[in-house]
Amino acid sequence: MIFIDACFKKPTPSAPIWLMRQAGRYLSQYRQTRAKAKDFIDFCRRSDLAAEATLQPIEALGVDAAIIFSDILVVPLEMGMRVEFAEGVGPVLSEPIRDRIGVDRLRENAADRLDYVYDALKIVRANLAANKALIGFAGSPWTLATYMIEGGGSKTYATAKKMAYCAPDLLHSLLRKLSAVIESYLLRQIDAGANAVQIFDSWGGALEKSAFFEFSWNYMKQIATRIKSERPQIPVILFSKGAGGYLEAIDGDFDVFGVDWNTPIDRAKSVLFDRYALQGNMDPARLYSKAAIEEGAREIARIMRGENGYIFNLGHGMQPDFSVENAKFLVDFARQIFAR
Amino acid sequence: MIFIDACFKKPTPSAPIWLMRQAGRYLSQYRQTRAKAKDFIDFCRRSDLAAEATLQPIEALGVDAAIIFSDILVVPLEMGMRVEFAEGVGPVLSEPIRDRIGVDRLRENAADRLDYVYDALKIVRANLAANKALIGFAGSPWTLATYMIEGGGSKTYATAKKMAYCAPDLLHSLLRKLSAVIESYLLRQIDAGANAVQIFDSWGGALEKSAFFEFSWNYMKQIATRIKSERPQIPVILFSKGAGGYLEAIDGDFDVFGVDWNTPIDRAKSVLFDRYALQGNMDPARLYSKAAIEEGAREIARIMRGENGYIFNLGHGMQPDFSVENAKFLVDFARQIFAR
Repeated sequence: MIFIDACFKKPTPSAPIWLMRQAGRYLSQYRQTRAKAKDFIDFCRRSDLAAEATLQPIEALGVDAAIIFSDILVVPLEMGMRVEFAEGVGPVLSEPIRDRIGVDRLRENAADRLDYVYDALKIVRANLAANKALIGFAGSPWTLATYMIEGGGSKTYATAKKMAYCAPDLLHSLLRKLSAVIESYLLRQIDAGANAVQIFDSWGGALEKSAFFEFSWNYMKQIATRIKSERPQIPVILFSKGAGGYLEAIDGDFDVFGVDWNTPIDRAKSVLFDRYALQGNMDPARLYSKAAIEEGAREIARIMRGENGYIFNLGHGMQPDFSVENAKFLVDFARQIFAR
Repeated sequence: MIFIDACFKKPTPSAPIWLMRQAGRYLSQYRQTRAKAKDFIDFCRRSDLAAEATLQPIEALGVDAAIIFSDILVVPLEMGMRVEFAEGVGPVLSEPIRDRIGVDRLRENAADRLDYVYDALKIVRANLAANKALIGFAGSPWTLATYMIEGGGSKTYATAKKMAYCAPDLLHSLLRKLSAVIESYLLRQIDAGANAVQIFDSWGGALEKSAFFEFSWNYMKQIATRIKSERPQIPVILFSKGAGGYLEAIDGDFDVFGVDWNTPIDRAKSVLFDRYALQGNMDPARLYSKAAIEEGAREIARIMRGENGYIFNLGHGMQPDFSVENAKFLVDFARQIFAR
């Protein structure tokens, strides 16, 4: 699998390619599969449908890796929170966590309740070409905590940050509980067939540097360390959106650093590439225009082409209004310019 | 004025202090003044009320500079767009700019229609102690353009970015038109008594590096150059939220670089302080806790204390749910630890 080789900085004939949120609403096949479920959570829980959605971009785009279709919020859901996905509103988590009772009430055995994800991974791995990698994933403890504390998405993360500054012990106890669940969850995803795992820290950038390391990165790092010690052959990818100013302090035992589009790839290369493989980082908004795709991919190729340990990807996820035609154009174009 | 001296990197007895959005809802005096206006736009247009709000934090907090109370959206408003501030929803701009007709329709003489801001500046300057600076401001062309294109606030800026990638000429024509207005607007604010001006690029970080310089920074830089050539004695402060990954490429003729809380101040110091004064950058969320205020201010003091050309401030604006007590505590604490 060229994806796995690149994660370990081994030579590959071309840079492997996949796109964050490649299984998504921009694909008509996805929308058809989605329509078979009664709601979004049912979609996540139906292993057959999740497997179907996971495989669609492999066929439609020809990418080198599949990422299991699911949502980061299945973890709070199985820890006992009520999670609803209201159309056009985003996720709503009732009874947000604001105190010790809220934290204590969360189930520690959530990883035992996520068989539907493991089953989906098994189905996908059985149906995926041997040269394509299957990626498992989870949200980072901090990112999940923001949803659980805010009760949904947020623009300023004021409630979660207030807890960080006014009740850090409470937040740490929540983060520890989440970390234990995420660790088991990722290990079991690996046992079910995931060839690599990625932790998505979508809201790491909501924290200033010292708080980022205290409340987000340190937990991601601990999870990575545990996974690497138990499954050294499995690449671990860490992706923190908005940490571009903090690169100099990034450390830990993991394999691939996911570069968001806000972080110049040349900066990531000079600070991190001696220690980690890099993945990313085209601005997804370039998908709106073929000219912008060419320009963006060429600029990344200027810096990363021919390097061992580079995985082409976006710097954030695919959006529902993107065209499949442009996504396919991007994959083909990147494949061509990153060939050796 | 120690604020002006610090902008020009002259020695001052202590670091000057002010807080972005210091005239705001967290102050009960502000809410009382606000209640005298029939709506938020009326509040901006009533020079007497705007002057009142501007002066309140000087008395309440003892900061070293007043920033004129207004809103960046008075520019699109006076360029002819309909702007409404719905309670709890944020600004709504009807008939968003999506095509050439939309751009052409915008008034070029908007700076002539903003007498209410100039009048407020005159009132404030006449009532402000001689050792306190008065800061004028405007939104950056790109930041204003995002509101005008999206029709309000946005989480992903997808429509504005789509224009950047699919119709760059159209976006540039909008940005040029905005730049001309902002330039006149700031010059007239200076003529009305502003001792310094700041350009707020709240959404600069919505753009990846090359796009940031093309669509945002270059326009801010041009405005700064023009102001510096016409009014060299007036400090120009540029503040781009989310540009922490791009510091190495920052250039231009201006005086003070505003550091957001996402950009480590030691990094800003090492990359920019030989050329620019620095302002910032405590995370506003620290205002929730006195312990967090002390920790944050001490950390900045460790790096910037005793340097000529440092202005203490937050890394973004004050929030409505902050307490006046903590704000006052911050100002007093910072005053004490930054004293020489």
